[in-house]
Amino acid sequence: MATDTRDRILDATADLFRERGYSGTGLKAISTAANAPFGSVYHHFPGGKDELAAASLRRAADGYAAHVLEVLAAGPTDVVEAIRHGFVAAGQTLVDTDFVDACPIATVALEVASSNDALRRVTAEIFAGWLDALDLLFLGAGLDASNARRLSTLFLAALEGGFLLSRAARDPEPMLLLGESVAVAVAAALGR
Amino acid sequence: MATDTRDRILDATADLFRERGYSGTGLKAISTAANAPFGSVYHHFPGGKDELAAASLRRAADGYAAHVLEVLAAGPTDVVEAIRHGFVAAGQTLVDTDFVDACPIATVALEVASSNDALRRVTAEIFAGWLDALDLLFLGAGLDASNARRLSTLFLAALEGGFLLSRAARDPEPMLLLGESVAVAVAAALGR
Repeated sequence: MATDTRDRILDATADLFRERGYSGTGLKAISTAANAPFGSVYHHFPGGKDELAAASLRRAADGYAAHVLEVLAAGPTDVVEAIRHGFVAAGQTLVDTDFVDACPIATVALEVASSNDALRRVTAEIFAGWLDALDLLFLGAGLDASNARRLSTLFLAALEGGFLLSRAARDPEPMLLLGESVAVAVAAALGR
Repeated sequence: MATDTRDRILDATADLFRERGYSGTGLKAISTAANAPFGSVYHHFPGGKDELAAASLRRAADGYAAHVLEVLAAGPTDVVEAIRHGFVAAGQTLVDTDFVDACPIATVALEVASSNDALRRVTAEIFAGWLDALDLLFLGAGLDASNARRLSTLFLAALEGGFLLSRAARDPEPMLLLGESVAVAVAAALGR
C-alpha cells in the first residue's frame, strides 16, 4: 500500500510535468492528482520537489522508452518501415489524447536546462540512455557507429520537434512529415 | 521613455521565458530584470501576464526569425552549405552563452500546449510563420511545395530538438549531427 501511494505520486507527477511542466506543477496539485495525503508526498520524498521530480522523470523515461521500442517492434520488420509506422503511431496518439500525451521529459528538460543543474543532469542521463537504445536499433540494422548515432539523434530530435510543432498546431501533420524525413534518411544511410 | 520601458519589459520577459519558461517567470522577476517599477508592468499590459506573454513571444519570435535568416544569408550561397553553417553557428552560440541562448518560444510552447489555449494559439502562429519563411528558402532553391514543407518542418524540428538535446547534455554535438542530417536531406531532395 505504501508502495502503491509512492507509485501514484510518481505517476501523477509525470502526468502533470507532461501537461504543464515543472514550474507549473505544485506539490499540492500532485497530492490531489495522486489521491494521496499531502504529508505522504514528503514522507516518500523527504528531499521535496526536486527528489520527487528526479524519481518521476526516471520512472516516466523508462516507461516511455519501453513504449517507443514496443511501437517500433510491433511495426513492420524492416527498420525504415518501422520508423514510418512509429511516427504515424505518435501522430495518432496525439490526436487520440487531445494532443496531451507526448514526451514526459522534454518540457521539464527545457525549463531546468539553465536553472536547476541537478535536474538538468537527470534529463541529460535520460536522453543519453534513449540515444544508446536507438543506436542498438540502427547498429542491428547494419549501420556503422557514426551513422547510427547521427540517425539516433535525428530520430529523437524529430520526435521531440514533432511533439512541439504538432501540439502547438493541434495537427499531426508535422509529426507525419518528420517520420517521412527520418525514414528517408535511414534508407539513404542503408544505401537504398 | 514610456516606449523604452515597454520594450525593456518585453525583452526581459523573453529572456526569462527562454531561461526558465512561462510558469517559472513571475511578474516581480520581470519588473526586476527590466529595471522597471512593478506598476509599470500592469500599466503597459493591463491584461496581465498573458497579454505580456503574447506580446513578448511575438516580439522575440520576429527577432529570432530575423536572426536565423541572417545567419543563413551570411553563410555560403549554396543552400545545403548554408544549412550546415547555420547549425554550426547555433552550436557555437550555445557554447558561447553557456547553453542559455536558444529558441525563445519552445519552452513556453510545451508548457502551454495543453493548459493555456490563448497562448498555445500564439505559439502555433509563430511556428506557422517560421515554416512559411523556410518554405520560401527551399522553394527559391528549386524544391517543389511538398518537399519544401517537409524540409522546412525537418529544419525547424531539428533545430528545436538540437536545442533540447544540446542544452540538456551541455554539448553542441547533437546540434552538429542534426545539421549534417538536415543538409544531407536537402541535398537528396535537390537530386544531388
